[in-house]
Parts: sequence; structure tokens; C-alpha cells
Amino acid sequence: MPDTTYSKYLLSEDEIPKAWYNIMADMPNPPAPVLHPGTGQPVTPDDLAPLFPMSLILQEVSTERYIEIPQPIRQIYAQWRPSPLFRARRLEKALDTPARIYYKYEGVSPVGSHKANTAVAQVFYNKEAGIKKLSTETGAGQWGSALSMAGAFFDVEVEVFMVKVSYQQKPYRRNLMQTFGATVHASPTNLTDAGRSILEKDPQNMGSLGIAISEAVEVAAKSGGTTKYSLGSVLNHVLLHQTVIGQEALLQLEKADDYPDVVIGCVGGGSNMAGLAFPFMGEALRKGLRTRFLAAEPMSCPSLTKGIYAYDFGDTVGMTPLVKMHTLGHDFMPPGIHAGGLRYHGMSPLISQLHEEGIIDARAYHQNAVFAAATTFTRAEGIIPAPEAAHAIRAAIDEALEAKEAGEERVILFNLSGHGYFDMLAYENYFAGNLQDYEYPADAVAAAQQRLPQIV
Amino acid sequence: MPDTTYSKYLLSEDEIPKAWYNIMADMPNPPAPVLHPGTGQPVTPDDLAPLFPMSLILQEVSTERYIEIPQPIRQIYAQWRPSPLFRARRLEKALDTPARIYYKYEGVSPVGSHKANTAVAQVFYNKEAGIKKLSTETGAGQWGSALSMAGAFFDVEVEVFMVKVSYQQKPYRRNLMQTFGATVHASPTNLTDAGRSILEKDPQNMGSLGIAISEAVEVAAKSGGTTKYSLGSVLNHVLLHQTVIGQEALLQLEKADDYPDVVIGCVGGGSNMAGLAFPFMGEALRKGLRTRFLAAEPMSCPSLTKGIYAYDFGDTVGMTPLVKMHTLGHDFMPPGIHAGGLRYHGMSPLISQLHEEGIIDARAYHQNAVFAAATTFTRAEGIIPAPEAAHAIRAAIDEALEAKEAGEERVILFNLSGHGYFDMLAYENYFAGNLQDYEYPADAVAAAQQRLPQIV
Repeated sequence: MPDTTYSKYLLSEDEIPKAWYNIMADMPNPPAPVLHPGTGQPVTPDDLAPLFPMSLILQEVSTERYIEIPQPIRQIYAQWRPSPLFRARRLEKALDTPARIYYKYEGVSPVGSHKANTAVAQVFYNKEAGIKKLSTETGAGQWGSALSMAGAFFDVEVEVFMVKVSYQQKPYRRNLMQTFGATVHASPTNLTDAGRSILEKDPQNMGSLGIAISEAVEVAAKSGGTTKYSLGSVLNHVLLHQTVIGQEALLQLEKADDYPDVVIGCVGGGSNMAGLAFPFMGEALRKGLRTRFLAAEPMSCPSLTKGIYAYDFGDTVGMTPLVKMHTLGHDFMPPGIHAGGLRYHGMSPLISQLHEEGIIDARAYHQNAVFAAATTFTRAEGIIPAPEAAHAIRAAIDEALEAKEAGEERVILFNLSGHGYFDMLAYENYFAGNLQDYEYPADAVAAAQQRLPQIV
Repeated sequence: MPDTTYSKYLLSEDEIPKAWYNIMADMPNPPAPVLHPGTGQPVTPDDLAPLFPMSLILQEVSTERYIEIPQPIRQIYAQWRPSPLFRARRLEKALDTPARIYYKYEGVSPVGSHKANTAVAQVFYNKEAGIKKLSTETGAGQWGSALSMAGAFFDVEVEVFMVKVSYQQKPYRRNLMQTFGATVHASPTNLTDAGRSILEKDPQNMGSLGIAISEAVEVAAKSGGTTKYSLGSVLNHVLLHQTVIGQEALLQLEKADDYPDVVIGCVGGGSNMAGLAFPFMGEALRKGLRTRFLAAEPMSCPSLTKGIYAYDFGDTVGMTPLVKMHTLGHDFMPPGIHAGGLRYHGMSPLISQLHEEGIIDARAYHQNAVFAAATTFTRAEGIIPAPEAAHAIRAAIDEALEAKEAGEERVILFNLSGHGYFDMLAYENYFAGNLQDYEYPADAVAAAQQRLPQIV
């Protein structure tokens, strides 16, 4: 049993991982190919070249177990990495549980979430390829602010399509992006064909990640090569960049002389969960460990627990390649919950396949239960979590209470992927009793099935 | 010349200071006594007992150089301390300066500022004395949220009087305090005689730190001993608790093989500047070093640069003992600038005396110049500073530009006392050109002189 005075596990800068870990090297089955929507055939690197620099495209399809992190990226990482791993002793005490709860805290990055890990990498590779401008989408604004910061560091222009409901609910995130020098639009906009097509049908449309992706992809695709597109989750190379989190946590738990029974992350597109979990999953797959992996998602947008595992578009309008994933249908419009980063119709193909293969479990939670967990956590640990990350806290607390019920010493590790300083309005609404718990409609799955694209 | 890969200087948990450093042991002259407003005689510890536990009163008057930090306080400190010291290499590059700029970053505490350092200590000592409830004031909300967090940790109730202009401008800070379980009022309130007396004269009064202090002091004074009062700056024991900052910085600069020519902090009540500067000042006074110390304050509330050095009340209504300090008059109403934490009519007696003796310099800055500096900093370093801390950044950048002009290798150290995640509205107003630069009225000093209390 670990016992340190302060329950914080730090690493030195030398221990920042020198390579990202690629789960594709250890998966039981190769990942399902990405298909071209026109031909129904697997896409080639050249098909993706209008959107991404070749270095990122090669990472997207690589099956090498380790991919070296360039030194300029590690130098920037070192401003906030290695991030701390905490043992939540005060939370354990508040819950009166025999479980040992650890959390990796990614809120220490200057933009307050794990998104900085891939933002810095993506801007670096684009800069290296001579790109002057990036377009992207953002939900709650965590990804958009991370890319804006990295853009400021490398002198690359950033244009952000921000989901309108978050643009209005979270003006502070928008202000942060603008302070970094980025341009921010409330999506859907009149600036793109994609945005206009949505607004024609529904002028009051409050936006979704799928729509914002359509807009950002269109800007890059029509730029004639001057602008590339950048995505904050879902894709293999994005999840890859996040694996610094789990690799650090493996080392930190070694120092704590402990090992998790269950590894938990919230999932929207899947990148923060993958970042923490994949290195532990690699260990489990290679060594035959029985570690459990649990994805926590919102009941209002339950792609893993209610979605169909099928080929679908990554965006709403249908501009992206087809990826095999858990999807609620690419035109699903999730309710305006406060965990804006989790309002995505699909799920990362890697997470989806690992869920389908029984390696990743998933549970869905209602907003009010999630904020109740966040409040318990804040009063015990001091840190106020982002509503997205609070889903992981809900799952971790439930695991700890189950362990208490069973009288067992369960070891729980979760990713506190970001802080909630920009989300205090959500807490105010929670305390005022104004948060609604949305149910996913019972007939929605059959309806989504109808809307899936036909593979040629 | 220092050269590390990442420009971040960390310490181990063992290097968290084991004692606070007390500048009173090294000041050229003993501090001016605090006077009882009724008798004009120096106050006794018993006079202060209705407001503070005896352990803090003894710290207030101690002349011991080092005062041991109890282990439970160090354990909580260890969640975020030692805080990092950064070399601002990207900022240096952006300014093209030969100066070396270092900043100590206190935004890493769970509430995002240095205020947590004294909040934890004050709640600990009150808890030890059997106190169940604390009342306090807050300006921007940084202090109130720090005390609320510490109250949650030690199970001590917290009641906060928040300056009304900030209560309205910064609802997120209020929400944070409420999430910790604290009660928050917009001051002036109808709950106290002090508040009612202000509202009778001026029903639209937007509040000030001085008024909020009157209200919080009254709540404690009339509680019959169940409630004590807690102050987030100004007092000797508060400044004492902040000296962990400077002691860590001394060690970190030793690791960087460097030493500051100038040490900079923003000042409202003075505690973050004292926290960083006093340990360096002690070195300078004991060893005869020529280190400069620079206090950065707002032009709209310029207590050090325009105030009178005289005995005055710490609060607006006149309930506190008389302290000798730089003051703009205890009923001075500063304009509603966004650096709410700097809107205080007076200045810590220790900082005041050291300024009067020529040991601390001071400069005042306009809001727009401060936000321009903050924007430059954010784009280079990623961290968005609180408007208060941005005053120190303005001063540091000016020093760096002077060094460039003079072609000299100046070493600049400043305290980045907190992040600005809760202050994005201020940045929005800055970019929209809506920030007003207030001048302190030319005849205000003579007017303040008239309003000073008469010493018996």
C-alpha cells in the first residue's frame, strides 16, 4: 500500500515521454479501414493531403508501437509536463471508501486541459510543412483555445468555428482564443456552404461539433493548399499525441508502488480517455492483465452505450471520409448540455473498435448526477473540474462506493482532463436546479440506422 | 548565464519552506505600532482577540526571523507547492531584450492565486482555536474563493462580503465560492450596520474593499466569539504566510545560477509582492545587496505613489484599529477597474514603511497599458494573467525594454500571482476599446488629508 506524505507524484523533465505510444501495435485486430465516401474504397494518404500535412497522415496509419516526439514539442510540453498524479486522499476520506483513487491532472496546461498536448504537436508539424493557417472546430472551446495558443507560439494563424450554443454559454473561452490572436465564429455561419445549408433549413440552429467540423473542413479544402484542417479528437494521430498522459501515469504509479484495477476517462471524441488508458491497455494486452477500462459519456449523447457500430461521416454535412465507429447518426443534434466537449455524434474509431471487442466498457450519466460528483470532488480536493471531466469523476466515485459496498481495496485511476474555471455558469445552473436530465429517445437508434450513408 | 532545456525550475516537496520568513527581524526600523482608535495607544493582543485567534495575533507582532509552518499546512501546500519558477524565454524573444525575465507562478493553486497560501494557514489556526465560522471580504473574489476552499478542507463555515461591482462583473468567482459551500453577499448589504449606513447615504453604492471589510469585521465583532474575521492581505501575518513564495524563488534562482537585479509585484494590500520580495529583501538588508524592489499599482487607486503616509482606518466605516500606512483616505471610492483586487484605499503597513524608507519603489499604471502587456505575455507564454498580476507584467516588460535600450543584461523577477481565467470579460472589454484610463484627481491628496482620523 502506497504511503507518501503529500499524495502527489511528480516526475522530472527527463521523464517526459520521448515517444508517443501507438495502440495499433497491440490491438487484437487491425483497425477497420477509413473509406472514401465516393468510391467506398480505403482512403490513401493522398486523399487526405488537402486536409493534413503528410507527417500527420503517416502517424494516422502507422502501426509502429512508439513514434518519437520531436524535441521542440517536448520543450513546450515541459512548461506543464509531466503533469501531476494525485492520490485523492481527502476524497477517499469523504467517501469513507477502502478504494484508492488516483487522478492525473491535465488542467495544469496553460489552456487548462489535455487538448494542449495534441495542439502543440499538430501546429508543429503543420509549421514544418510550411502551412501558414489552420482551420478547426471547437465545442466548449477547450480545443479551440489550445490550438489558438499553439498557433501563437509557432506564428500560425488559427480560424475557429465554435458551436453556437457554447459560443453563447461560454464567452470567456471565446475571449481566450481572441487574446491568443485567433479568429472565432459562431457555427453554423454564413461563411461556408456547409453553414449556409444548415441555416437555410433551420435559421435558429445552435450548432453541433459535426456542423462545425463541416465548416472547418470546407475552409481548408477550398483554400487551395494554404490552409490545413486540425481536429481536436477522434482521429488516430490525435489520440496518439495524448498518450503522454498515460505513459507518465504508468511511471508515477510505479513510484506510488500501485497499479489500477480500473482506468476511467470521459469520452466525447475519445482523446483524453485514450491518452490515459492506451498505455495501460498496451500493458494489459501484452501481459494479459485484467485491468478494466471504463468510458464515461453523457446520457444525452450516448454514442458508445446507444449508438450503432457502423461506417458514418465524421461531420454533419458529409464532407469527411467514412469511419467505422459508434455513431448516433451524423446529423444527430445533441441537447445543449454544459459538457459541450462531449456533444459529438460519433466516437473515435479506435475507442469504438476496442469497445466492440469488449476491451473498453462504457456507462452513460445524467448531468445532475455528474455535477453532484463534481461538487463532492471540489469540496474535498479543491480543484473545480470541467463538466466533461466530471463524468469521469462520477464514474470514479461510483466505483469507489461499489468498492466500499463490497469491502474491497479497489484501485481507481481517472483522468481529470481539465478544470472548470470557464464553466462556472454550469455550476450556478446546477445549484439553482436548472439543469435538465435529457433521455436519449428510445426509437432513436432505429432512426439513426436509416440515416447512415450507403457504402458504394 | 543560466541555460536549461526547458526554462522551468522546480523544487521537490522536501524543499517546501519549513518556516515563514518574517521581514520584521531585518527591517532597519521597528514597525510603527498599531493604535487603538478610542485611546490612541498601541493595541494589545487582547484588543485584537475578538477578531483573530491568539496564534495569529502573536504572529502579527512577532519579530522572530523564522516562524515554523505546522505540518498540516505544509501537507496542503504540497498539493500545488513548490510552485514553478519560469524563465520567460519566449517573452524575452518577443521583446528582443538582453534582459533575463523570470516569473514565479502562483496560479497553480486550486483557486488560481497566491491567496491560498494564507487562507489555508488562517483556517488551520482558527480551527485549532475551536472556531466554527469565519467572515471575510473579497474584491475580485480571489481571496474569498481561497478562504472558501480552505474552509471546505477544514470544515469551517465561511461568509463572504464581496464588493458589489465585482459580484456583478465576476459571477464565476462567486459561483466558485458557492461550490465550495460558502455564503456570498454583494457588499454593501442590509445585513450589517456598516452596510446599511453606506446604503442610506448612497443606495446605488457599488462597494469597495474598505466597505466589505467593515461588514465582515462587524459580523465577527458581534458574534459573541463564535465567528472570527479573516483578512486576505495588508496585515503582517498575512504577508508572513506569503513568504513561502520568495523563499522558494531564492532556491530556484540558485538552481538557475542567477540572481535578480529587480523584484516586482503588483500591490493592492501588498501581500503577493511581500511574499515574493521579503525573502530577497532580507538577503539584501543583511548582505548589503543593491537589489531593487518595485511595487506596481493602478493609476486609479495609487496609494503608494499618491497616498499620504499616515495613521488611518483599514476599513471605510472606521471599525478597525489605526495603522500607519500609505492611504488615499479610508472613504476613498476607487473607480470600478477590472483589477478588483487592487481597489483598496490603503497599503500594508510593512510595505508602506519600507517604501517610506526608500527600500521599495513604486510605479502606477493605466489599465490599457496593463492589458497590452498582458496580451503580449499571453501570446508568448500561454498563461493568461489576472488583471492584478498584469500590473507586475507591465512593470517587468518596461524594465526589459529599458534594459534593451541600455544594452544591459538586467535580471528581472516578478510574481505572476494568479491566472485570469475568471477575468476574460476584462480582456473582451480591452479588445473592444471599452476600458477607461482613470486619472487620480489632482486635488485628491489634500482632500484625503482632511478625512484622516484624528489621533487622540
